[in-house]
Amino acid sequence: MTFRAKHLLGIEPLAPDEIRTILDLSEQYVDLNRGALKHSDVLSGLTQINMFFENSTRTQASFELAGKRLGADVMNMSMQASSIKKGETLIDTALTLNAMHPDLLVVRHPHSGAVDLLAQKVNCAVLNAGDGRHEHPTQALLDALTIRRAKGRLHRLNIAICGDIAHSRVARSNILLLGKLENRIRLIGPPTLMPAGIAEFGVEVYDDMKQGLQDVDVVMMLRLQRERMDGGFIPSEREYYHRFGLDAEKLAYAKEDAIVMHPGPMNRGVEIDGEIADDINRSVIQEQVEMGVAVRMAAMDLLARNLRAQKAEGVWA
Amino acid sequence: MTFRAKHLLGIEPLAPDEIRTILDLSEQYVDLNRGALKHSDVLSGLTQINMFFENSTRTQASFELAGKRLGADVMNMSMQASSIKKGETLIDTALTLNAMHPDLLVVRHPHSGAVDLLAQKVNCAVLNAGDGRHEHPTQALLDALTIRRAKGRLHRLNIAICGDIAHSRVARSNILLLGKLENRIRLIGPPTLMPAGIAEFGVEVYDDMKQGLQDVDVVMMLRLQRERMDGGFIPSEREYYHRFGLDAEKLAYAKEDAIVMHPGPMNRGVEIDGEIADDINRSVIQEQVEMGVAVRMAAMDLLARNLRAQKAEGVWA
Amino acid sequence: MTFRAKHLLGIEPLAPDEIRTILDLSEQYVDLNRGALKHSDVLSGLTQINMFFENSTRTQASFELAGKRLGADVMNMSMQASSIKKGETLIDTALTLNAMHPDLLVVRHPHSGAVDLLAQKVNCAVLNAGDGRHEHPTQALLDALTIRRAKGRLHRLNIAICGDIAHSRVARSNILLLGKLENRIRLIGPPTLMPAGIAEFGVEVYDDMKQGLQDVDVVMMLRLQRERMDGGFIPSEREYYHRFGLDAEKLAYAKEDAIVMHPGPMNRGVEIDGEIADDINRSVIQEQVEMGVAVRMAAMDLLARNLRAQKAEGVWA
Repeated sequence: MTFRAKHLLGIEPLAPDEIRTILDLSEQYVDLNRGALKHSDVLSGLTQINMFFENSTRTQASFELAGKRLGADVMNMSMQASSIKKGETLIDTALTLNAMHPDLLVVRHPHSGAVDLLAQKVNCAVLNAGDGRHEHPTQALLDALTIRRAKGRLHRLNIAICGDIAHSRVARSNILLLGKLENRIRLIGPPTLMPAGIAEFGVEVYDDMKQGLQDVDVVMMLRLQRERMDGGFIPSEREYYHRFGLDAEKLAYAKEDAIVMHPGPMNRGVEIDGEIADDINRSVIQEQVEMGVAVRMAAMDLLARNLRAQKAEGVWA
Repeated sequence: MTFRAKHLLGIEPLAPDEIRTILDLSEQYVDLNRGALKHSDVLSGLTQINMFFENSTRTQASFELAGKRLGADVMNMSMQASSIKKGETLIDTALTLNAMHPDLLVVRHPHSGAVDLLAQKVNCAVLNAGDGRHEHPTQALLDALTIRRAKGRLHRLNIAICGDIAHSRVARSNILLLGKLENRIRLIGPPTLMPAGIAEFGVEVYDDMKQGLQDVDVVMMLRLQRERMDGGFIPSEREYYHRFGLDAEKLAYAKEDAIVMHPGPMNRGVEIDGEIADDINRSVIQEQVEMGVAVRMAAMDLLARNLRAQKAEGVWA
Repeated sequence: MTFRAKHLLGIEPLAPDEIRTILDLSEQYVDLNRGALKHSDVLSGLTQINMFFENSTRTQASFELAGKRLGADVMNMSMQASSIKKGETLIDTALTLNAMHPDLLVVRHPHSGAVDLLAQKVNCAVLNAGDGRHEHPTQALLDALTIRRAKGRLHRLNIAICGDIAHSRVARSNILLLGKLENRIRLIGPPTLMPAGIAEFGVEVYDDMKQGLQDVDVVMMLRLQRERMDGGFIPSEREYYHRFGLDAEKLAYAKEDAIVMHPGPMNRGVEIDGEIADDINRSVIQEQVEMGVAVRMAAMDLLARNLRAQKAEGVWA
């Protein structure tokens, strides 16, 4: 096994072999989740705490189910309603939780870098469930697993990531992961929603969907993150859909067997035509959700193994 | 075993034998819940998701306890704080959850018919925990169990359902269930709170409590659903209590051994006199709550058996 | 075993031997929580319900983890979003929950005495997780365990409790517990935040930190409970810190090996200097949190044993 990390803070520090290790183990959990009895004892005796400083129905649910199906004692903490209102700092909150001896800490936070900071203060495994515009590693891993299952491989693919790149940690983690595995990445979106300095990542940038989608294997749509657009350019939904929404006409430029992805929740008629989203020959959007639970089970399983090994070696108190 | 349904969406589609099967199994769970150790492994390895689009402390708690005591992995989703705010449709939310492979989906929704619609989109068992003014089948089943235990039978009883019938899915499910088992049902309430076309259901309608309660075996009070009265007639609490609130004087018209029921939460001094609610010789209100957990355990147990059988036969993917 | 109580409603009714019994058992749970597998089946088959009528991230999390690690079926009820809004009384809410047959009921309530009242209405074990300004017994027990472990004993110590005594159930429970075990207690704070008639408790009262801290073994800081100060004197944070905040200069008056405590969440720079809070040679603030989980496990374990014994003897229905 080549996965030796203490935490899963982002895709950036992972080696290609580590990514493959997670994806390979995830396949076993896909089978478990599809079976009649979807429960194992891999994490039994361990405590998982989900700390969500931002609302997220689907990601939190996915981590919660993953932990419960692996037999962990799982606790959700809604941090909006928490001590933070009473004036406590993020670090104090982290230290408090740490004193309760969790084994796995799943954290979502609106500020980029907050999860890394927190990981330095605790002696358990930390999983980043999305921090600001920085990273969302389990999303990139579930996208990778979905692509690998649909395409039979995860290298030398032409992959288009479309829409609001600038506000998207999903895009950032995907660019890192797919780049490490030698895929050709195209970013398509309005220049105002394209991050500065993006060319350094070795990607091609387009502001025209038809040009950008030409012969791609994978079309990955993003959610328009209106809630993160503080001032600046906010496109009208109608105009956005006309230029950047995925419809049949634009999709026709991609390869005939190209798959369509979306991290959800979808704005139908804004980022994507409802019929394409529902087309089971093209859309793998439901499978992405399914892979999400499996990938999180695999990631927590691997981190728990490392935690146990490190504690046995006395690396951690 | 005569219960063969995939879902529990309402009382309407159930045959009398199916109702009796649920009630008979519930009796076993009453015993389990009263014992020293109240836990079984009937649902172990299965995933139960509670999706409440409306707040409900007691119904959600009842389903949650039922699932946990049967060993399921139980997850609550508060759908007010959810992706729905991010523009996702009910169907997309359902498909997303479905992709996580739940076995049992418990749904409460403010719109009549929403739960039926959702059940068509998923491949797990769906339990209706109340949809709009339509149905609330587990409430009717727990009421039926309570009556059967108190009266020794569940047929040929005179049963009065009193109060805000028009806004009540509880009333509707009870009328359906008690009618199927050949009881004589009287509805008592102000004409403005009586649904149009109710006579077709083979019930008698009264707007006078004393007349309506004459010689009944069961007095079922309803909650005044002020929050659902959009415009139109809203009675003052004092006036309502005077005419339709259950007090000793009115109750004297019922049979001497008549039982008093209320689905809760009660407005004491509005729908019912506090002393009657607390009179352990007449009131079975606490027992209704107790039966609620048992009935939900039985319903989930039976649906899980059918799910397993159907999956084994390849009926469902 | 000398612990024979049905409930844990406060420190007041406990005998010194009962306190020692809880603390001794807690030590075992400290070890369990520090181990590789932190799960036992002591409460398996039992149902624990957490009813929090006031928000509390850390206390609720501590009780929830304690119950889950002991194998109970644990259910949280956020009572702000509950039936209480629909007009239900506290007693009706209690009776409703009671009908679901919980074994352990953990209750926090903003009104002093509410938890005692509730305990009279249910036939399960009730744990007070804080009621108004009255008691917070598990906080006093975890503080006691922390002191005993740091000082090697829990009697004949000089202990200063500092700050907002008047609004603090933490202070009240600590004064009761530490007094029963023959410690010398000093209360330090502005006269406006000192409760009337406090002298009867056999404590010494100071309004000067340097005088009060002279040669103490333990410095217990309290949180400034601004949210409970309805009208009356509200000190500015800056002024408060200057006179009553714990800084190095004031701490120098205590014994050289004095420990520093805070129940959390901390207002750094208001009640306590951040550097002192983080000084691992003086501060036992993280250990307090750790002891909290262990003490709650011990308390629930002992109450469940008594519950089982009483039910076997037929004392309770």
